[in-house]
Amino acid sequence: MINVGVFGYGTVGSGVVELIDANKEVLKKNTGDDVKVKAILDLRDFPGDPFEKLVVHDVNLIVNDPEISVICETMGGVGAAFKFTEMALKAGKSVCTSNKELVALHGPYLLKLAEENNCNYRFEASVGGGIPILRPLQDALTADKILKVTAIVNGTTNYMLTKMTREGADFNEVLKEAQDLGYAELHPEADVDGFDAARKLAILSSLLYGKTVNYEDIPTEGISKVSSADIKYAKALNCKIKLLAKYEDGESGAYACVAPHLVCEDNPLYNVDDVFNAILVKGNMLGDAMFYGKGAGKLPTASAVVGDVVECAKNPGKNVPLNWADEQVKLSGFENSSRRFFLRVKEDAKEAAKAAFSDIKEVNAGVPGEFAFVTGKLTEAGFAKVKESLGDKVLNYIRAEE
Amino acid sequence: MINVGVFGYGTVGSGVVELIDANKEVLKKNTGDDVKVKAILDLRDFPGDPFEKLVVHDVNLIVNDPEISVICETMGGVGAAFKFTEMALKAGKSVCTSNKELVALHGPYLLKLAEENNCNYRFEASVGGGIPILRPLQDALTADKILKVTAIVNGTTNYMLTKMTREGADFNEVLKEAQDLGYAELHPEADVDGFDAARKLAILSSLLYGKTVNYEDIPTEGISKVSSADIKYAKALNCKIKLLAKYEDGESGAYACVAPHLVCEDNPLYNVDDVFNAILVKGNMLGDAMFYGKGAGKLPTASAVVGDVVECAKNPGKNVPLNWADEQVKLSGFENSSRRFFLRVKEDAKEAAKAAFSDIKEVNAGVPGEFAFVTGKLTEAGFAKVKESLGDKVLNYIRAEE
Repeated sequence: MINVGVFGYGTVGSGVVELIDANKEVLKKNTGDDVKVKAILDLRDFPGDPFEKLVVHDVNLIVNDPEISVICETMGGVGAAFKFTEMALKAGKSVCTSNKELVALHGPYLLKLAEENNCNYRFEASVGGGIPILRPLQDALTADKILKVTAIVNGTTNYMLTKMTREGADFNEVLKEAQDLGYAELHPEADVDGFDAARKLAILSSLLYGKTVNYEDIPTEGISKVSSADIKYAKALNCKIKLLAKYEDGESGAYACVAPHLVCEDNPLYNVDDVFNAILVKGNMLGDAMFYGKGAGKLPTASAVVGDVVECAKNPGKNVPLNWADEQVKLSGFENSSRRFFLRVKEDAKEAAKAAFSDIKEVNAGVPGEFAFVTGKLTEAGFAKVKESLGDKVLNYIRAEE
Repeated sequence: MINVGVFGYGTVGSGVVELIDANKEVLKKNTGDDVKVKAILDLRDFPGDPFEKLVVHDVNLIVNDPEISVICETMGGVGAAFKFTEMALKAGKSVCTSNKELVALHGPYLLKLAEENNCNYRFEASVGGGIPILRPLQDALTADKILKVTAIVNGTTNYMLTKMTREGADFNEVLKEAQDLGYAELHPEADVDGFDAARKLAILSSLLYGKTVNYEDIPTEGISKVSSADIKYAKALNCKIKLLAKYEDGESGAYACVAPHLVCEDNPLYNVDDVFNAILVKGNMLGDAMFYGKGAGKLPTASAVVGDVVECAKNPGKNVPLNWADEQVKLSGFENSSRRFFLRVKEDAKEAAKAAFSDIKEVNAGVPGEFAFVTGKLTEAGFAKVKESLGDKVLNYIRAEE
């Protein structure tokens, strides 16, 4: 019998409990043993809930229970969740989580703690929700040098950008609708300013680079500056605007960044709309492979958490190391990485812009009073300098994905 | 040192040798040891080839070499490849292959042989080329009951159907072009008649069902009956025609089938064009997840073969079982599985067709002399019976994917 403890009986936690009950046959087939939730930690009571008798209020009842070998941490946050995860790992219990904040902040420390205590810390659900991506990168794409990962990992912003594209609506309008529908939070900064995507990218980048990438070091731009005019130009270019989380290990050195990008029709990410997520991986031998699915939601996320439980159950008392060292690294390649840029300037700066950027391609979308164009390939540093020279004549700019 | 033997120095075999040489650092990082090709078995010599000194003509020099622990079988075919794989596994050497014919024919026997000899038989490259799919199904999507797999796994037919869709060209025209370009073989039956897809589906279905699905038992229709008229109707329905390999484990029992299907815009497979492959997996908790990439080619395929080498290298002397028993099963759910059908009949059979099928939706694509429509949901058996009643008035039919 694999006895599981659950920390936090909210959306994902209740999904985990529901899944383990509903899919007991699948779990028995895949682990070779019965899997059962033995206790659920939550401050609240749940009268009438089918699992109300499993709810406990004292974490010690779980971390000191010798029968419980795996714990699902679905509390969220970096306070109690951190402390309880620490306690569980020190007690030799594997912990599986969807808590991207905690993984981005303390991942390598918790991985080391798991190693020292012959158990495992796993977090497939923290990136791309239900989409298997961390495990394929660690276990399947092992013959390739991973040159680039380009990902849509925030469903809220992808939903908003899709709606702006379909309806020609402006950012604030769509945000309000998304909030009314519950797709966006009342304090939507984590999503719309790109911080959620940056945390997920920090986890991905750390596993790819093998050292710890701090999410606060990742250059991050959100989507709040994307306007309906930008969307019009994107359409004129047969592109869509997507919030991309990118990791690249190229000639100019490795870098990670989060920013809105123009994504053209021939890119498989072009068709990733609504709340869907996708991670496009480029290997030096494989070429492009893409992983697509639901990046959030109670049951898809629970599916990834419990997939990790199965892995832990198959390795009792044994640490399976991940490639993520507790050594901070500042990825420094961003300034020298190069790409084309889409730029809009006031009409009276047309000649100045033409002089400042050589090799431009004008774009016309019927927006009056301005001049818009796509630059040739420039480094980030080079672009910033030229853009600076145009001062407040610049209305907006968006990076173009290859 | 992990010494690798390679059986067959053709396209994929030379890709494997090239990859292991080029990506030695990646392989060392992922296995913790140096990985090197020690010998290549081929009947031919390769004067001037950078690895010509590694070529041997006697299989015993590889299977009896105590230093070689893993073998890549990239010969193809089910004759010598079978015999040599058997010899290698009996000698306790793990074998990794891209040979779908051999896996579909003798997979469970070779897996058992590997188990008995404490080594492994692996074949990620046999389905979807470079796309990781078998390992994610076995190792990541372990918390879900897999309800359905819908896959585009044959690049040749997908290329042809894409070209027919873009250019309005007919099957024979496009086939000739594809042959001239080397995308289709001179004897293209394995691809265009769906047998290649059926073999890949047999491997997938066996791993999903846990017992052996014989590819010859899979109802299989190719694309040779797809005409430019069908393509016109598909466009009128905002659909594309795709050759789908499907496994479903639903209310009417499990079944597998290969056939052209109408795939509509809202299905993620709609955008999988040209030679690309994709596998759409539906879990009871996860919902839909899709794996997309290059289903063939020298280096993408080599990437999957060597990914398996890494797994074998990490498990020396230890068999890691796969869920595929050596027990034949006939999946019997096809006749009772239900869907809508697109049907074209001669114009004079319009009233008869309307009477025979209730709940039809007419489709107009400006093709003279005929009447075309989409039926309501019918079982395969039910559809076959009604279609039979219309005799030679039926011009063509194509299944509609949900």
